[in-house]
Parts: sequence; structure tokens; C-alpha cells
Amino acid sequence: MILVLKSDITPVEVKRLEEKLAWMGLHAVPSQEEGRYVLTIVHGTDKQVQAEQFIQLPGVDQVLPLTQKYKLTSSEVKKQRTVIQIGNQSIGADHQVMVMAGPCAVESEEQMDITAKHVASAGATVLRGGAFKPRTSPYDFQGLGEIGLRYMQVVAKKYGLLTISEVMSIDQIDVTASHIDILQIGARNMQNFNLLKAMGETQKPILLKRGLSATYHELLLAAEYILSTGNSQVILCERGIRTFEPYTRNTLDIAAVPVLQSLSHLPVVVDPSHGVGIRQFVPALACASVAAGAHGIIVEVHPNPEQALSDGPQSLTLPQFSDMMVSLQAMAGALNKSIAK
Amino acid sequence: MILVLKSDITPVEVKRLEEKLAWMGLHAVPSQEEGRYVLTIVHGTDKQVQAEQFIQLPGVDQVLPLTQKYKLTSSEVKKQRTVIQIGNQSIGADHQVMVMAGPCAVESEEQMDITAKHVASAGATVLRGGAFKPRTSPYDFQGLGEIGLRYMQVVAKKYGLLTISEVMSIDQIDVTASHIDILQIGARNMQNFNLLKAMGETQKPILLKRGLSATYHELLLAAEYILSTGNSQVILCERGIRTFEPYTRNTLDIAAVPVLQSLSHLPVVVDPSHGVGIRQFVPALACASVAAGAHGIIVEVHPNPEQALSDGPQSLTLPQFSDMMVSLQAMAGALNKSIAK
Amino acid sequence: MILVLKSDITPVEVKRLEEKLAWMGLHAVPSQEEGRYVLTIVHGTDKQVQAEQFIQLPGVDQVLPLTQKYKLTSSEVKKQRTVIQIGNQSIGADHQVMVMAGPCAVESEEQMDITAKHVASAGATVLRGGAFKPRTSPYDFQGLGEIGLRYMQVVAKKYGLLTISEVMSIDQIDVTASHIDILQIGARNMQNFNLLKAMGETQKPILLKRGLSATYHELLLAAEYILSTGNSQVILCERGIRTFEPYTRNTLDIAAVPVLQSLSHLPVVVDPSHGVGIRQFVPALACASVAAGAHGIIVEVHPNPEQALSDGPQSLTLPQFSDMMVSLQAMAGALNKSIAK
Amino acid sequence: MILVLKSDITPVEVKRLEEKLAWMGLHAVPSQEEGRYVLTIVHGTDKQVQAEQFIQLPGVDQVLPLTQKYKLTSSEVKKQRTVIQIGNQSIGADHQVMVMAGPCAVESEEQMDITAKHVASAGATVLRGGAFKPRTSPYDFQGLGEIGLRYMQVVAKKYGLLTISEVMSIDQIDVTASHIDILQIGARNMQNFNLLKAMGETQKPILLKRGLSATYHELLLAAEYILSTGNSQVILCERGIRTFEPYTRNTLDIAAVPVLQSLSHLPVVVDPSHGVGIRQFVPALACASVAAGAHGIIVEVHPNPEQALSDGPQSLTLPQFSDMMVSLQAMAGALNKSIAK
Repeated sequence: MILVLKSDITPVEVKRLEEKLAWMGLHAVPSQEEGRYVLTIVHGTDKQVQAEQFIQLPGVDQVLPLTQKYKLTSSEVKKQRTVIQIGNQSIGADHQVMVMAGPCAVESEEQMDITAKHVASAGATVLRGGAFKPRTSPYDFQGLGEIGLRYMQVVAKKYGLLTISEVMSIDQIDVTASHIDILQIGARNMQNFNLLKAMGETQKPILLKRGLSATYHELLLAAEYILSTGNSQVILCERGIRTFEPYTRNTLDIAAVPVLQSLSHLPVVVDPSHGVGIRQFVPALACASVAAGAHGIIVEVHPNPEQALSDGPQSLTLPQFSDMMVSLQAMAGALNKSIAK
Repeated sequence: MILVLKSDITPVEVKRLEEKLAWMGLHAVPSQEEGRYVLTIVHGTDKQVQAEQFIQLPGVDQVLPLTQKYKLTSSEVKKQRTVIQIGNQSIGADHQVMVMAGPCAVESEEQMDITAKHVASAGATVLRGGAFKPRTSPYDFQGLGEIGLRYMQVVAKKYGLLTISEVMSIDQIDVTASHIDILQIGARNMQNFNLLKAMGETQKPILLKRGLSATYHELLLAAEYILSTGNSQVILCERGIRTFEPYTRNTLDIAAVPVLQSLSHLPVVVDPSHGVGIRQFVPALACASVAAGAHGIIVEVHPNPEQALSDGPQSLTLPQFSDMMVSLQAMAGALNKSIAK
Repeated sequence: MILVLKSDITPVEVKRLEEKLAWMGLHAVPSQEEGRYVLTIVHGTDKQVQAEQFIQLPGVDQVLPLTQKYKLTSSEVKKQRTVIQIGNQSIGADHQVMVMAGPCAVESEEQMDITAKHVASAGATVLRGGAFKPRTSPYDFQGLGEIGLRYMQVVAKKYGLLTISEVMSIDQIDVTASHIDILQIGARNMQNFNLLKAMGETQKPILLKRGLSATYHELLLAAEYILSTGNSQVILCERGIRTFEPYTRNTLDIAAVPVLQSLSHLPVVVDPSHGVGIRQFVPALACASVAAGAHGIIVEVHPNPEQALSDGPQSLTLPQFSDMMVSLQAMAGALNKSIAK
Repeated sequence: MILVLKSDITPVEVKRLEEKLAWMGLHAVPSQEEGRYVLTIVHGTDKQVQAEQFIQLPGVDQVLPLTQKYKLTSSEVKKQRTVIQIGNQSIGADHQVMVMAGPCAVESEEQMDITAKHVASAGATVLRGGAFKPRTSPYDFQGLGEIGLRYMQVVAKKYGLLTISEVMSIDQIDVTASHIDILQIGARNMQNFNLLKAMGETQKPILLKRGLSATYHELLLAAEYILSTGNSQVILCERGIRTFEPYTRNTLDIAAVPVLQSLSHLPVVVDPSHGVGIRQFVPALACASVAAGAHGIIVEVHPNPEQALSDGPQSLTLPQFSDMMVSLQAMAGALNKSIAK
């Protein structure tokens, strides 16, 4: 249920209305849309309350039903695209494509330095790297932990990059947030609801990856957990879904880009590395993602993929990354967009 | 890598061998198999160490390669079926089928009392009920929390039942373990690796549900996280996978029963309620599960499904549950098995 | 649209009503249901004609909307289960389970003789065997053709069995129908609509396999092609669907048994051999199929699976088949059913 | 098995070698690759014959194993991309993108005339339209048949377009080939092997659509049926696969473009209309397809989609098609390609 308030309503009257709703057992989130105050009722059962009850409240101009179960995430509630400011960069604006690049796992300071230097000079603005690694097997490399985050922070500063890294559990949030600019929730944790809520309480931008077999609807409801806890800086990420096709690691669902952009106001990026899992095909899928309208891509790059401790087969070499950036820039130009700032 | 030790080796010599391996950077888990000591090397990269190195160690009789990535979970390592003792019941023995029944969510003490009384008299031995509920939407009923666990404990004691309930995050483990006999890890948390490790440190039996799009291999590696942290009382649970078929909630993968039983020594149960999602078809799938060789089933039952706060459409009514138990008993009899003790 | 006719209507009046409908551009299929004449309108757009138009026609008692797109196949139209008589056997009756067994491909008369003798003595009543083989690769064995059908006819007669064999194209229908009792449409041809229509014009029982990624709805509409062309002797067959799980050849959708039986009046059988693709797991799935309520199973058996020209890994040996039949008979007994006559 | 022949071998010696192989029970297909004669052995079991046998044959320079089951289709056998000449157009060349557009079903001459005029002026070079329609339900519109093909032929000639239309069964091949330039095999017939063989005997270019749940491997083996019967003018078409996501009609597997281009020498096109099934998202997916490297796209356009007898929701309006062509031309330009001639 969305309440569009009268155009001459005052902030004090809005506050009073929120209190009245709270007294009715309903939780309303205020926002402004096209110069009008809007209250979106997110808690309390829509079914039990009638539109008629609300239209009689002081200051309410219009009552709109919400057809989607996700509310704060929905483009019905907020029509303009959310643009998230991160340091000196932003993501979500129509004319910009953000490129995030780096290794799957942080392995050493030297590895991060070489990679950061190279991707920055080729046009990336965000350095990716995993310090806490979710691994299918308990016997695989589990990440360097905090020391890895520090390496990232040091080299990112040196080359003028922002950083992104994955958080796997609630106890890793604070340490990661103290070193890193964007917190990532991995595909396997997309429905780890307690983690989602805890992330909603931070003030950091969050990149939320689609689960391996999550529908668009479920991804948006997972984002809703974060927004409804108080953090609206969420970036949605398509990273391939699980299908019957055995040749590729996952099947990149390219339609997710325009569909999620139509259902939600949040920025949408693509991870072509996990999407296909084979280095040779990553550039074609990165180009396709930009052509489909993605606000950014996040891609795995490694100075020496054969020696990588994780995801070597899908990591681009440094020269491959540079070549891909040339194609992406041509592509972006044809669409009147630019890569990065 | 599995080291089969000499038949006349002493416990002291085994201990010394373990220490030697630890010094080599390897972690070995000891067990006994058919009267012989066996050491399974689970940490350290198999690739880097040669079989020849091990055969020269004092007390080693045979060196067997492990063809599977999961080790402690594997039927290659432990040939006999694991039988888990829980209170006065056990699960995993060839001739027994354990029935766990109850509502999706604990709603009130009265609801639990009615349900427990009925399912106990019909032959169930474990009462299920959710106090912490993983819900796709942040606006759906999230469970009663600890008070719900207490209701379960009280009524289970009254009717001589064991209990099972889901744990969604590390901070819920202790409180749940203090009231409940079997801890459940839900499908959405099957690859929440930090939770898996924490569960491995408890001494409670754990029912691990297969993820919505998890392969057998991934399920066994998730179990491996628990076993390798020290808890070998794991029950695997098939609960339906996600496919293209829209008619049913999930597609119950009945082959998972014999396949998992052949790949692993752990007991395997089936959840036909989530497997199909439609009340009317649950009894047929429960019968199929027992016929396929399941060690147990876990099924949703509610005194008044139309009023259920969660999963009403797939919950059996009390009379439907009784009818189903009659069929299951006939089926079990034909297979020389019995339901419960 | 279903027209239930007045209880005292005469056959001449029914005929006249059909002609009137034909003049209106509608094609109606007559049937009898619980002692009443019923006309099901299958051609012509339901949307354009109003229920009111029909209730005024002479002899019409009730007009029922059809909520499903499939009509003749639907259990809304025909409440009683269809029992198909084939030679001295029948399929579809509540208390019977029909077992069809034999090799994937007919290879020689000797192979068929050995197999037929064995499966007949173990309790099968139908001999399966492929003479026209749909093979994924053009370089794989494509079947013996008509000579293979003759081998089947000869040995089936010798051991008192019925026969089933696949028809891949319209030009193979006549020759197959002249030697074989039940014609099979394979999974890859489930939506070969011209073949379906041509099969509808024969008077032979037809076993229709579910396509690799066909929904229940699509399977029933494929059956509808056959029924609407004039042949109502259709047996539906679940044979596993394609999912992300790589371990098994397909994922047997056991829920298809009770769901299809509730949506349609046609008999439902299961093919556990293609359903799992691994010999060792076939008996467990055959037992599960009978427990779920299947009217029959169709299973691959070969005197020497290692030498089979097709599908060796999923074919049971002769002793394995005998063992499985013992289990199936116990299972059927517990359900008050019997295998075969 | 591939035999690379000596550089100075004469055509007569090649012929003699083929005969010798035939005598050995093997069928070899000759071709020329980089100025050398090559014989690819397609029939006869590779396993039974040893490489050593072949190297001793007169004229044989090198013996290469074939690692793929598909042979004539494989990029191992033919390194250069196949460019198919169709009238005054071609498909497969690096710098060209072919656009095929038109309605799902031919409904009237007027509809085809309006559509053809519009798509030709916007830059399409091929007119699509279905005269024989594969429909899931027997009660849906089944197509105009031959008269529809004639309408296509007339309007295509008027506006200088080529034509493409689907063939559903062997008896429709001749009539379609007499009116239409490119014959299409639909997704549901991708493994209708008898149809594939019959299509291999025509000399028309063939567009082969990927089945709803076909792997890349199976698609290439289906193409192999056509090539091995004598027709090498095959265009592969990705049109979306079936997954668990209910929002879109299918999931467009964009990775199929670069992967199929690497596995095979055949041209690859994309059908974004069936790929997503919702008009609004078709242009983004068409752009993504070109960016991923597709040799062409085939898209549904209708003068009045709301009135379309088939697939209205996914058909672009005429103005939407024009807008999309502007984007595609910009995109193609950035890639140094051009739309059409």
C-alpha cells in the first residue's frame, strides 16, 4: 500500500501521520517522489486493511495498491533510478558503466599490486578480491582473512581505486567495512536472511548476487530485506543461473538486466566470469552485458591465472583484460555511455 | 588419501603416526573399519603428496587413493551405514523408518499439543516445528523464536516424542540445542559454510537439507563441513529441487535416496511436503520414499491447514496423516521394515 | 465447453445436436459419462461463444466451462479411469500393475528369445524392444528396422507376451502396427505434432513419453492431439526430466504419477531405466513408482548389458530383473494390487 | 578420425583412397582445408580401428583423432567459418549481421505486405513468417499452409527480401522449398531425426533452432545429421532454453553465441523474441546478441500485435522495430560490422 500525500502537507503533519499508522500496527517508510511525500506501508498485512481506511486519514491524497510483494525495491514505489555515490564514483546513472576487476581470491600483496596497477590503467575504477572465500569443499583454500582486506586497501589507495569484497557472515561485517568500500553478498548467501538484515544496518553500498537458482522475484525480496532494515544502497548482480547445460559453469541470464531494471529502481550489474566460467568467452559476455544496458560489470582478472588458488579457468589475463576494455569502450560509445568517470 | 594400518598396530603407534602426519602439514582423522585402524587424510593437498611417501611410514599397510572430494562423508571411507542414536530412537538401521511430523511453524502451545498428541498416536516418533523461520519476504511471519522451542519441548515430553527444529544462524544454535533433539539446516543455508562449521562443533544430531539447486556432490561436501569439524551425526534430507515444472512447488528427486545411500554412509530421509507442495500428493510421495529405501520421512501436519501461518497448502490434516501412516506401515511391512521402534 | 444432455435424450436427437453445432462452426465429441450423454466442444473458440447460446439448444441440460486447455484428456470431462484392453491384458485398472520389459534395441532373434523367455517367467506381460532407434548422433546404431519387429512378434507369440515398440515417423506407423501391439512415441517426438495426429488415426494403444523438458500441461496437450484425432487409447509415461543434476541421466519426477492421474483419466506408467540411467538404482525407482500408484512400469533388460548396442549402462541383467520382480510383487501385495493378470 | 593427405596427392589417388576405406567398411567425407585434401571418417566405429592402420595407407600424411562426436560440424575439421550465400545476401562473414523479421504466423497477404515493406525499409533482408505452425494445443491456429507461403513469396519479391519459413514434417519440404529461400527446423523438431535427414537431402539453406532443453553438444549432433546427409548450409539458432525462471518465456543463453562459434564453423544467429517472450525486452536482447558476436538475428514483428493469431506478446510493433534497428546499426558500427549488405 502506497499513500501519496497532499502536495501542501508539512513535515510535521507527515510525522503525525506516521505515528498514527504505527498506532494502527503498521510500519510506514517515508520518501519523496517527484516533489511529493509518499508513505510506503511495509509491515502489517495489506489484506486486512482497506484502502478506504487510509483515504480518510488527514493529509492523504491518493492510496495506491502495491501489486508486488517487494515494496521498497520496486519501481512502482520509486520511479527514478537509484544512483549510488561511492567515493568519487557513482553507479546507476544512465550514461555510465562501472568496471570492477580483480582476482577471485586475494593471495598476496604483490599479486594485488600488479593487478590493481594494470586494471586501473585500463579503465577499471573498482578493485575486486576475496578475503573470506565461500568454498564448496572444506578442504579448498578459504581465504587470507583480514590481512587480505588490508592488502586491498593499500594497493587500491595507491592506484586510486575503490574496493569490493565479499562478507560471508555477520561477524565479518565490521572488519570488512573498515577496509573496503562495497560489501558483497555472494550467491550462496542470497537467502541467508539474518546476514541480509545485518547488512541492512550498515551504511555501506552492498552488491547482492543472485542465487544459483533464485528467481527475479526472490532476488528482489532478498534486496527488500536490506532496504527494509535501513540501507537503500543496493546493487543487484546477475551472475549466471544453474541449468542443464554442462558446457558452461552457469548460464548467464542476460534478460535479467532489462527485466530487473524494469521491476526495480536499483542499479544492475553483471558478472560474466561466473556467468560462463571459461576465460575465452568472458569478453563476449561482458560486451553483451553492456549492450543489454548493465550499469556495470564485475570481472575476474589474475596476473597468472594458471597459478590462481581459486577460479583460475575463468580469470582473464592482464592483456585479455586490456583488450576487452577497448571493446567495451567502443560499445559504450555507441550507446552514448562512458566507462567510469 | 586413506591409510589402512597394519593389523597389529597399537593405539600408541597410531597416535605417533598422526603426529608425524601433522608435522608434514597434514590432518588425519582416525577411524576403525572392519577391525582395522584407518587414517583418512582430509587437509593438505593430495596432489602434492605421493602415495610412495606414505607407504614407507611405520605401521602403514596400504595406501588407497580417494576418488571423491568428500572424504569423511564417503562410503569409500566407511562402509557400514551410520546409525544415529537419538534418545530412545535411532535412524539409519536397515529395518527402521523414522517418521517426523508437525507444522511448518510453531504458532501456539495449543496447536503443538493437538498435533503432537495426534502424530504420536499415529506412529510418529519425532515432532517437527519451526521457531526461527526463513521466509522469502521480510514481511512474512518470521517465527515465535525461543518461546516456540519451549512449547515444542513441553508437548514432546508429554507425548514421548523427540523434536527437530531449524537453526538459521550461529547465534541460534545454543538456544535451540538447549530445547531440541535434532537441529535442522534448511535448504537455503546448505552452503552457509560458517553455519555448517559451527554446527559441526555441537554434539547434536543434524538434519541437513539439500539446497534448491544443489547437486549430490555439493550436498555431500556440505555434510563434509560438519563432519570435518567434529560432528558425524548428520542425516541427509532430499526435499525437492528446482526445475522448469510450474505445477508442483519443487520436483522431488526420488533417485537421491538410493544414490546418496550408495555414495555415503549417512542416513537419508525425504521431505515429501516441500518436495511437491500440494497436500493431496504428499501421501503418494511418502510411500514412494519408503519404497525407494529412505531411512525416514519428515512431513508437515497441521490441525487446521487453512489457518496455518506458513505452508498451509502442503500441510496434511490430522486425519490425512493417520491414513498415510496406515499405508506407510503396510509398505514398510512388505519391505521387512517397521515404522519407529 | 461441455454440454451435459438431458437424461431422456435419444441418439437421434444427439446426432441432430452435433449437426447443429457443426453448422455453427464447432466440433463436438460425444461420450457417455455416468449414464448421461455429454458433448465436449473441442474446436472453435470458446471465447467467442457464450454459455447462454448453448443452454437454449434442444436437449441441453447443463453447460459446463472447461478450465483446462486439454479437454478430451481431462479428468474434468471423464471421471472414471480409462482402462485399455490389449490382447488378454488391460492397463488402467486400480488393482493391476503391468510390467513391460526388454532391451533398448532389438539386436538379434536369439537376444530377443532369451530375454522374452526370462521376463515372461518372471512375471512381465509385455516385451519391449526398439527397431527404429532415435539416436542423438547420426553415427550411432539406428536399429534393425522391420526385421527387428518380426523377431519381436515371433518370440512374443512363443512366450505369450504382448509387444511395444517405438515409431519415429509417419511412414513407420503401418509396418509397426502390423507386427506390434502397443506403439510408443518417444520423448524427443512428444511435440512432433504431425506424428501425433497420424497416430490418432490408428486404432492401436499408444504409449506417449513425456518430453525431456515438457510440463504436465504440455504432455496432456500432446495426448490431446491423439485423442482429438480419434484414438483414446493413450498411456502416459513419465521417464525423467532434464535438470542440473549431472550424476543421473535424468531426474525421475515421481510426483508426475499422482499429479497426472488427478489431472487426466488416462493410465500412467513410469520408465525408471531412462529416469535414472544407472542399472544399480533402477529397482529402487521401480518400487517407488509402484508405491506412488503407477499403473505399470517399462524397464530395460538385456541378457548381456556390457555388449548392448544401446543403453547398456541402464539395462538390468536377467537375474537383477528377477530380483526386482520379487520386490515389486511384495510391494503390489501391500497395496492390494497384483502384477499382471 | 581425420586423415590429412599428402600435399602432392592427385584427385584420382584421393578417389582410390576413399574406395579403399569403403572396402574397410568406413565412410569418409572429403574436403579441402588450407590447400590440403582431408578425409573425415564419419561412419564405422573409431574405437575398433587404430591410427596405425591409416598412416600406412598410400597418400596419407597425418592421422588426427577427433575428440568430438560431431565431425562435419566441428571447427576441428573445418577451421574457416562457413559463409552461406543466399540469393544476393550471405551469412557467416565476420563483418556482417543479417536481420530476419516478420510475424510468427502468416495471417493474410495484406499483413505480410505491410510488414515486408516496413522491415525492408528499416534494413532487414529476410522476411520471416510461419505457414505451418507447431502449436502446443491441437485447438490453436495451425497456420495457412501453402497459401501462406505464396503470400510470402509475392511480397518478398516486391520488396527485395529473402524468405524463411518453418517445415514441420517431411511432406512439407517440397512445397516450402518451392516458395521459400531458407527452411527452418523448429525447436520442438530439433531431434526429429527423420526430418533432419530429409532436410539434408535438399539443397536449401537451413536454420536449425536449438531444442528447449538441448545441450550445445546435442544441437551440433542434430546439425551433423543434416551435414552427413549432404547439406552443409546450416545456420545454428539460439532461441532460449527452459529454466526455473517463470518471469520470462525462456532464458536466452547468450553464451551459446561465442561457444557454438568456437565449437563449430557454422554461422550462429539468435532469436530474442522467443528468447524472452516479452516485447519490451526484445531490443535489449537483440543488441546483446550482436554484441556477443551473432551473425544475425531473427525477430518477430507484427503490424498489430494485439490482434496476432500467435505470439502477439513477444512481437515488436513496426515503430519498435525501426527504433531497434537504429540501435543495432550503432552497435554493429562500433564492432566494425554492418547490418545486411
